Amino acid sequence: MERPIGVFDSGVGGLSVLAEMRRLLPREHFIFYGDNANAPYGLKDEGEIVRLTLAAVDILLSTDIKALVLACNTATSAAAPALRARLNIPVIGMEPALKPAQALRHGGKILVMATPATLKLPKFGDLMRLYGEGAVPVPVRGLVERIERGEVSGPETEDLLRETLSPHLREPVDAVVLGCTHYIFAKEAIRKAVGPDARLVDGNLGTARQLARRLEGQMRQEGEGSVTLLTSGDETACLPLMRRLMAVVE
Amino acid sequence: MERPIGVFDSGVGGLSVLAEMRRLLPREHFIFYGDNANAPYGLKDEGEIVRLTLAAVDILLSTDIKALVLACNTATSAAAPALRARLNIPVIGMEPALKPAQALRHGGKILVMATPATLKLPKFGDLMRLYGEGAVPVPVRGLVERIERGEVSGPETEDLLRETLSPHLREPVDAVVLGCTHYIFAKEAIRKAVGPDARLVDGNLGTARQLARRLEGQMRQEGEGSVTLLTSGDETACLPLMRRLMAVVE
Repeated sequence: MERPIGVFDSGVGGLSVLAEMRRLLPREHFIFYGDNANAPYGLKDEGEIVRLTLAAVDILLSTDIKALVLACNTATSAAAPALRARLNIPVIGMEPALKPAQALRHGGKILVMATPATLKLPKFGDLMRLYGEGAVPVPVRGLVERIERGEVSGPETEDLLRETLSPHLREPVDAVVLGCTHYIFAKEAIRKAVGPDARLVDGNLGTARQLARRLEGQMRQEGEGSVTLLTSGDETACLPLMRRLMAVVE
Repeated sequence: MERPIGVFDSGVGGLSVLAEMRRLLPREHFIFYGDNANAPYGLKDEGEIVRLTLAAVDILLSTDIKALVLACNTATSAAAPALRARLNIPVIGMEPALKPAQALRHGGKILVMATPATLKLPKFGDLMRLYGEGAVPVPVRGLVERIERGEVSGPETEDLLRETLSPHLREPVDAVVLGCTHYIFAKEAIRKAVGPDARLVDGNLGTARQLARRLEGQMRQEGEGSVTLLTSGDETACLPLMRRLMAVVE
């Protein structure tokens, strides 16, 4: 019950999921590990993503966590089945929120922004077959790198988003799925690029709710929660950025 | 806005979905078509299920419906993609509620009760790959036939359920997915067979909510809603049974 909840991301993106989980479970202790030294994962091959994820999760496991949250779409797609087979604690992952986006359709398209690796892994094909009606995958390059440097807005980030998205905006778009936890931090720049009509959809609240349900009966009943930040990167650069981004979404 | 919502099932099972939709959208007009003459679909092959579903949907389309609900898991798995490609109204379907069931896991199994056809169709494989951790498919034979005759409870229905489920109850079961809309009517008998600890999970509320979101801005703003019942079967036998079952879930 007192044991912490481990949260993993390739870098800072998972902090947006952490914020949602803190709102829902304010009494819990969270340990967040960002593999900033190896971010981004989205251009690596599957074997490399699995290897890095398992190594990072080992660090979280050494703190005796009661649940593991893979707060990274790419790592979930590549490594969640292997982790679920190995661990006997709940493993909660991310997935592009295609199903919720379907409910917002009014005859327009759904754009699914994600890393090239997430779009290539088999899990995405399964999701597209189930909930892919009218959905267009949009591989995004360079955005995670910018967010890892804290550049969540500004003209260059906006240019990158306009270039990536504008070819898909000639027909009506009902929803844009943010299929990478990093993208939440760039919501305003994404909003500028897609215009006011499309709804932006992410899986963060769904993941937080799933964690809450899986921990029923195992939650702290009193006291304040806490967050411990760990990084594989340069602490003097990464920790201040992490704290700054946490303040943006909290 | 005044146009009705079409609801289709192979027989009477979809009436359980209709009840949920009526609760959420009380002002709407619903036209329910049960293909009772051809029920059950769950033992037919894919081509036959698609053919029967398209023929039944044609009857609903002739009433100028504004949305189509496939209130049958088997018909959704077989025919939803073809219908979505053809129609330019929202097509809402069913799916075994594997994902919600995952959130109820506490180290036990999930039993997924469904018709043999639902379990064999590719959609179920996609769902299992995405949300199938700890899930055991349980093909159910004979239950839909009993429910089509109104035998939702009683010793014979209970015997059938005990025989079907007891081989899977030797290890702890956290959740039982009712992957066929007919099974909702036999909830009490299923509860008796699985015992008090497992949660019974169905997709009815999820489907009703999805319909509500897809119809945003197109809903009737005042007046009472209504239900019109149509059947391909013998009206003097089917309509009284349908009304009786509706009263059970309303």
